[in-house]
Order: sequence, then structure tokens, then C-alpha cells
Amino acid sequence: MASHRAAPEHTHPDDVPVLTALAALADPVRAQLVRELAASEDWSRSCGTFDVPVGKAAKSHHFTVLRAAGLVEQRDEGPRRVNRLRREEFDARFPGLLDLVLRGD
Amino acid sequence: MASHRAAPEHTHPDDVPVLTALAALADPVRAQLVRELAASEDWSRSCGTFDVPVGKAAKSHHFTVLRAAGLVEQRDEGPRRVNRLRREEFDARFPGLLDLVLRGD
Repeated sequence: MASHRAAPEHTHPDDVPVLTALAALADPVRAQLVRELAASEDWSRSCGTFDVPVGKAAKSHHFTVLRAAGLVEQRDEGPRRVNRLRREEFDARFPGLLDLVLRGD
Repeated sequence: MASHRAAPEHTHPDDVPVLTALAALADPVRAQLVRELAASEDWSRSCGTFDVPVGKAAKSHHFTVLRAAGLVEQRDEGPRRVNRLRREEFDARFPGLLDLVLRGD
């Protein structure tokens, strides 16, 4: 059975203004999502597997912000929505920025 | 006559968490202040010389956030509060971050 929800919309990092990228990463929950994704294999993590201290609706909003900032790509695999950090293309657009967040101090 | 207001408090970039630095720079008014400072000689600009679309209290708040993020140093010269971008020490702490904002796309 296919899911009836709409496929997620994405923004390529090349189309993201720098302030949008900074605002996306400045939030502690989103920074944690990005760090967990960076430590995981591409497409191995569904949204439900991230243990962040927010409810389901808020978590969904955070993923929307990450997609709009060119940080995360998502696709639906049956009932699971799986994720990939767009590391290479985000790094090409904003060199060093993701490294600062992953460094985590 | 000395000013009666308290001297501004500063935070060194070495003591600033990365998310605090990102949040400080993610705001369009603060990004504009930083860009104007980067284009000005150190200590040449008083707070009143920045033409940003906010009131005086809001502008003062933005400078407080920039000081707390290790981005701006201020000192009082009589009635003027003059500014310096802490470019070298901020760059040492967060390599490349300021360049992304100054690039401005």
C-alpha cells in the first residue's frame, strides 16, 4: 500500500540564502538531528528513530525546516520516511558551516 | 563629563557556543550591522551611524546579542559608543563562518 501523504518538497542548497541556513542550524533540536544524521548511513534513519525532546508535530516541523535549508533529503519507503544528510552539496554551497555544527562545541 | 551608563559587557568568542554564534548571525538586521562593521575601520562607527530599519531600543538589543556572541566589541567615547568587529578572534574560533555572512548571498 502506498502512503497517501504528499511526497516531501525539497530545496537544493544552491537555492538557500545564507541566513536561512544559519537559522536552520541555530536550533538545538535541529542541530541534534543533523549530528545524528551525520553519524548514520544515508537513508538508514526514519524520522521516528531520532530521540529528540519534542512531540511528533514539532519534529515534523523541524524536518521541514531542514529540507527547506537544503540540509536533509527525505523519501518515503512504504510507511517510513527515511533521511539523508545532503552533506556534499551543502558543503559545496556553505564551506565549513556543517563542520562547525558537527564539531559541536 | 563621563557617561553614567554602565560599560558594555563582552563575551570572548572562545566562550561562545556555536549555536549562539549561528543564532546571532541568522538575523537580517544583525547580519547588516556585521557587514557594515566589516566595511568600516575599527572604532570608527558609533551605534547611531548604522541605518537599520529598527527603533533605538531594538538596535541596542541587537548590539547586545552581537557582543554576547563574541562578534562585536564596544567602548564609550564620551557620548558615543563606538564599535569594532572582532574579526580575527571570531575567525579563529569559527573558521569561515563570518566569511559566509559577508559573502552575503
